Amino acid sequence: MKARVHVMLKEGVLDPQGEAVRHALGSLGFDGVQGVRQGKVIELDLADGTTEDTVREMCEKLLANTVIESYRIEMP
Amino acid sequence: MKARVHVMLKEGVLDPQGEAVRHALGSLGFDGVQGVRQGKVIELDLADGTTEDTVREMCEKLLANTVIESYRIEMP
Repeated sequence: MKARVHVMLKEGVLDPQGEAVRHALGSLGFDGVQGVRQGKVIELDLADGTTEDTVREMCEKLLANTVIESYRIEMP
Repeated sequence: MKARVHVMLKEGVLDPQGEAVRHALGSLGFDGVQGVRQGKVIELDLADGTTEDTVREMCEKLLANTVIESYRIEMP
């Protein structure tokens, strides 16, 4: 089974990578880009029967730094 | 308006970052993780009326390296 985890910097945490992308888009002539935030998406191929609780534990222990990042789990 | 772009390495392209995560999850005692792929998610805050074609152009020109990466656009 597949699970997908989205990890984004929390609101208020500076995102220099996103800011660099915003600036580069402006330089390329794309107007009206007001903000860019960049995050990670992690696709996991898991054994059948793995619960969302297990995936949440993976996030808390490894996949996200919960001090500055929030995560969202998508499972079928 | 908001748009979200998912950028993933194409099938067949080695993903050492994902592989490192898979290995680390195994070391932490999470069994049955058969594969991990890591990608990027980019959230764009755009001027109203920006079309999906414009976002596609951003992807082709900057956000994705289309030689090795595929992208998917989510717009409301």
